[in-house]
Amino acid sequence: MRKIWFATGNPGKLKEVQEKFSKYGIVVEQLIAPYPEIQADTLAEVVESGLSWLWGEHGKPVIIDDSGLFIDSQKGFPGVYSAYVHKTLGCQGIIQLMKGASDMKANFQCCAGYMNEDGDVTLAVGRVDGTIILEMRGDGGFGYDPIFVPAGHDRTFAEMSLEEKNKLSHRARAFEMLAEKLELNRNDAP
Amino acid sequence: MRKIWFATGNPGKLKEVQEKFSKYGIVVEQLIAPYPEIQADTLAEVVESGLSWLWGEHGKPVIIDDSGLFIDSQKGFPGVYSAYVHKTLGCQGIIQLMKGASDMKANFQCCAGYMNEDGDVTLAVGRVDGTIILEMRGDGGFGYDPIFVPAGHDRTFAEMSLEEKNKLSHRARAFEMLAEKLELNRNDAP
Repeated sequence: MRKIWFATGNPGKLKEVQEKFSKYGIVVEQLIAPYPEIQADTLAEVVESGLSWLWGEHGKPVIIDDSGLFIDSQKGFPGVYSAYVHKTLGCQGIIQLMKGASDMKANFQCCAGYMNEDGDVTLAVGRVDGTIILEMRGDGGFGYDPIFVPAGHDRTFAEMSLEEKNKLSHRARAFEMLAEKLELNRNDAP
Repeated sequence: MRKIWFATGNPGKLKEVQEKFSKYGIVVEQLIAPYPEIQADTLAEVVESGLSWLWGEHGKPVIIDDSGLFIDSQKGFPGVYSAYVHKTLGCQGIIQLMKGASDMKANFQCCAGYMNEDGDVTLAVGRVDGTIILEMRGDGGFGYDPIFVPAGHDRTFAEMSLEEKNKLSHRARAFEMLAEKLELNRNDAP
């Protein structure tokens, strides 16, 4: 069995990722290691920098992820800073901002990254497209879930069950792709 | 003559700081060294982290600074991420956001920091209070200057001459205080 570490403080995320990777014969252990997130334009830059830092500190093969909401008419805002913007403006701030917009398209993205023992990086980006609505709906989920309706659906992420959301979500897709890439890399290895 | 380095790519800022420090017999040279800015709640954290990084890379006594606009009714947003928010939402986005607000109070802050040869940090924070207005006024300045009226004035920063703004500004105050602190430290030294 291969073993890798997932640097997260979130037990729910850990469990989701453990289940996904176990299908590929990979055991995922939690690494409690807060790492600095840099200011950057893309999730990939934040993840790569975090991986380098963790590798320097711990020297273990590790995975991390970063997510954001990207609104088309706002040049991708709040993007990489989605957590900070949610803490300050909240969903109501985004609604106020979007009252002035005609294009409501947005997408959630998650970048999941892995650095192996040699310092090689593998990245995978999961994305779910949808629209912003001008009222909060639903009690589930967190963050911007109450104002985001994924394309092809008429309910917000916050109106879906956790299982339903996890099937659609950007994070699920990112980790699924990452697990597939790691499996492929392993088969490529001599 | 003491000599220290200022990590900036901005010739205008360099000149302003050189003039200020020359009064204290300190020569300021430019250091072209982009450093990572971390995601954090305060300017001080960003500056301290940048100084540590530069010290590790260059080992020279160096000053850096970071600024932001903090809006009371928006829990300090855009704060540490003011540059990114200006690039995406711009002044018009802030105006749209503030249409829903009754309290227009805001302040500009600049944190200037210095790390000496021994790795000791000196920080100074300059602040100018004022209000946000719901229209852009003036052609001067940059960033949020057209929507910020400093307290005790009736014109925006963008309606003032550079000399006038530099006398009031958060950055001028931060570097003035930093220069004074460095001078005091020097006199304290055995």
